[in-house]
Amino acid sequence: MKPKSRISPARWAHMRLFAMDVDGILTDGGVYVGSDNTETKRFYIPDGLGLGLLRDTGLPLAWISGRISGATSIRAAELKIPHVIQGRRDKLTALNELAVTLGLELDQCVYMGDDIIDAPAIRAAGIGVSVPHGAKGALAAADYITRRPGGGGAVREVCDHLLAAAGAARGNPGRKPGTIRR
Amino acid sequence: MKPKSRISPARWAHMRLFAMDVDGILTDGGVYVGSDNTETKRFYIPDGLGLGLLRDTGLPLAWISGRISGATSIRAAELKIPHVIQGRRDKLTALNELAVTLGLELDQCVYMGDDIIDAPAIRAAGIGVSVPHGAKGALAAADYITRRPGGGGAVREVCDHLLAAAGAARGNPGRKPGTIRR
Amino acid sequence: MKPKSRISPARWAHMRLFAMDVDGILTDGGVYVGSDNTETKRFYIPDGLGLGLLRDTGLPLAWISGRISGATSIRAAELKIPHVIQGRRDKLTALNELAVTLGLELDQCVYMGDDIIDAPAIRAAGIGVSVPHGAKGALAAADYITRRPGGGGAVREVCDHLLAAAGAARGNPGRKPGTIRR
Amino acid sequence: MKPKSRISPARWAHMRLFAMDVDGILTDGGVYVGSDNTETKRFYIPDGLGLGLLRDTGLPLAWISGRISGATSIRAAELKIPHVIQGRRDKLTALNELAVTLGLELDQCVYMGDDIIDAPAIRAAGIGVSVPHGAKGALAAADYITRRPGGGGAVREVCDHLLAAAGAARGNPGRKPGTIRR
Repeated sequence: MKPKSRISPARWAHMRLFAMDVDGILTDGGVYVGSDNTETKRFYIPDGLGLGLLRDTGLPLAWISGRISGATSIRAAELKIPHVIQGRRDKLTALNELAVTLGLELDQCVYMGDDIIDAPAIRAAGIGVSVPHGAKGALAAADYITRRPGGGGAVREVCDHLLAAAGAARGNPGRKPGTIRR
Repeated sequence: MKPKSRISPARWAHMRLFAMDVDGILTDGGVYVGSDNTETKRFYIPDGLGLGLLRDTGLPLAWISGRISGATSIRAAELKIPHVIQGRRDKLTALNELAVTLGLELDQCVYMGDDIIDAPAIRAAGIGVSVPHGAKGALAAADYITRRPGGGGAVREVCDHLLAAAGAARGNPGRKPGTIRR
Repeated sequence: MKPKSRISPARWAHMRLFAMDVDGILTDGGVYVGSDNTETKRFYIPDGLGLGLLRDTGLPLAWISGRISGATSIRAAELKIPHVIQGRRDKLTALNELAVTLGLELDQCVYMGDDIIDAPAIRAAGIGVSVPHGAKGALAAADYITRRPGGGGAVREVCDHLLAAAGAARGNPGRKPGTIRR
Repeated sequence: MKPKSRISPARWAHMRLFAMDVDGILTDGGVYVGSDNTETKRFYIPDGLGLGLLRDTGLPLAWISGRISGATSIRAAELKIPHVIQGRRDKLTALNELAVTLGLELDQCVYMGDDIIDAPAIRAAGIGVSVPHGAKGALAAADYITRRPGGGGAVREVCDHLLAAAGAARGNPGRKPGTIRR
C-alpha cells in the first residue's frame, strides 16, 4: 500500500467539519471493564489540547461512535465537543445527516476512523483519515493515514494540519506547519 | 519453531465452534487490581467487533477461563457470548463437555489459548491457535500462531479467517480473505 | 534536531528548583476516564522514588499542570510535593510567580514539559527539559531531552542528574553519576 | 554490562525461598491513581500462574515492598502468598529477618528487585535477580537479569527455572527446562 501522508494545505483549509470515530482513534481500541461494571477508556491529553485549539478556531467537531459509552460522554463533555453521536454503526449515514444539518457537503468534511464500519464514511469524506493499525478496509478507503497511533497523537496530527491550514488562510506567517505539529 | 500461519480456507470452513481462553487471548494478560477490590481487564474493541460479526453468521462462540472474574462476565454479556465457562483449569475437559453438548467432534472446534493449561485443548482441537507471546507448551501445541498479540487483535485475526471462510462457502465473491482482515 | 543530552554537572548543581508539567511528563499523556466519572492517571514508581530522594536533599519541587485533576492532587500529596499548581496553562507566568515567591531567578530553575503551552517556560528556565515524544515546539525550546519517556523514567532521569550534582557538590565521592541513574 | 542469563539448574535447586519486590517486578512500575482515591496496579496472569505452580511444590514465597498498597494486599491474598511484607525500604534487613524466621541462610534465597533500594538484598541473596529496565545499581548487583520485563513475565521466567530445577531434583524427566518456560 502506498504511503498516504500528503494532503495539500489548501485541501485541509477547505474543510468545514472534523468528524471522527472514538474507539481506536481517540483511544488505542482498549476498553477497561471493571468488576463493578465501570467502563473506562484511555484518552490522550495532547489530542485533547489539539481539539481545544481547533475548537477555538470555530471549526465544528463531531464524535461518531458505534457503541454507547459513559466514558465517551464524559470525555466529550470535558472537551466541549459540540456534536456527539453514539450507538451508530452506520457511520456514513450519521455523518451525512450531520453535514446536512450544518449545511455542508461531504467533501467539506474530514472523517477519521479505524475499522470496516468506518470505511464508507472515510471513502465519502472530503479527507478520509485512518490510523496505522486500522483494518485493511479502512486503510484502503483513506486519503491520509496518520503516522501516530490512535490514542497516541493521531487526532493531534490531524488537528495540527487543520490548525496550520487555518493559520495560513488567515495570512498568519508565524503558524507554519511543523511549528505545533508533533 | 517454524511459522504456523497458514491454514487453508477449507479447513477454517470446517469449524463449527470457536472456543477461546480469556486472559492473554482477549486481553494482554494484565489484570488491574484496585485497592477498592475492583478487578479490571482491558479488552480490545476490534476483537469484539469481529466476534459480533461471527456471531451473526451463527457460529457458536465460547469463552473458557481458568479464573472466575466479574470483568470477564460483564464483557461476555456485552458481546452476547453464548457459552461462558469460568474457573476451569482443565480446559480440554471443559471443551470436550461443550462439544458433546453441541453434538460436535473436537476436530470441528477452534480452540485458542496462551498458557500451559491450554496446551491439551489446543492440541486436541481441530484448529489449535496460540499467540506470539504464548508459553512454549502452548506454541508447540498450536496449528496456527496469530501475528497480532492477545488483547490486540489476535482474536480478530481468527474471526477474519472464519468470516472469510464462511463467506467463501456461501459463494460470496465480495468477502475475500483480506477484505476485512486487519 | 541535534541531540540534547549533555548538561554539565556544574550546571545541574546550580539549580534551586525542579518544576515540571504533569501530563506527558509524570505520565505518558494518558488519562483514564471512567463511566463512574472517576479520572485515573498512571504514574511511575521509580519517578516517585527519585523525587523522594531529591526532596530529602532539600531541593524545592513543583508540579504545574494546565488541567485540574483529583488524581494529580492525590499523587502529589502521596509524594509530599510542596508546590502544586493546577489549572494554569500560562506555565511561564506560573513558574515566574513561584520563582519570585522563593526568591529565585528563572535561570536557577529546571522546568520540564512536553507540549506547546510548556514551550515558553522551557525556554526561559535555567535548564529546560522535554521528553522524546514532546511537541516540536517543546523539543525546540529544550536544553535537554530525556532518553526515557514521560511516565516511564523521564523524571527519574532528571532527578538522578540533580542528585549526582548535589552529591558531587557535597564532595561525596560515592555518589557518581551513573550509580543511581537508570 | 555482560549478559547475566545463565544460572545452573543445581544452583536454582539449592534455593529454599523466592522473595521479590512488587512494583517494577510484579508490575511494570506503573501505579494508577484515581480521583476517587483508589490505587490500582496491573499484574500479569502468567506470573500468577507460575507462582501458583511454585507454591504447589512447597517453596516459600515472599513479597517485600517499600510501599504500602491495598492493591498489593489484594493480589497477594488472591495468590495465597504466605509472606507479605510492606512499607519496608530496608529490603535486605526485611529479607534477613524472614530468612532467620524460616531457618534459612541468605544464600538459599532468591531475591528479585528493580531499584536502588533493592540492590543490597539482590547482592546478598543466593541468586539476586533484576529486570531489563532495572536501575543501574540493581542491575550491577544481580546474578541474573530476566529477558522478560517486570509485570510481563519476569517473575514467570524465574518461576520456570525454579520449577524445572525442582522437577529435575525429583528425577522427573518430563519436566525439562523449556517445557513450561515462556
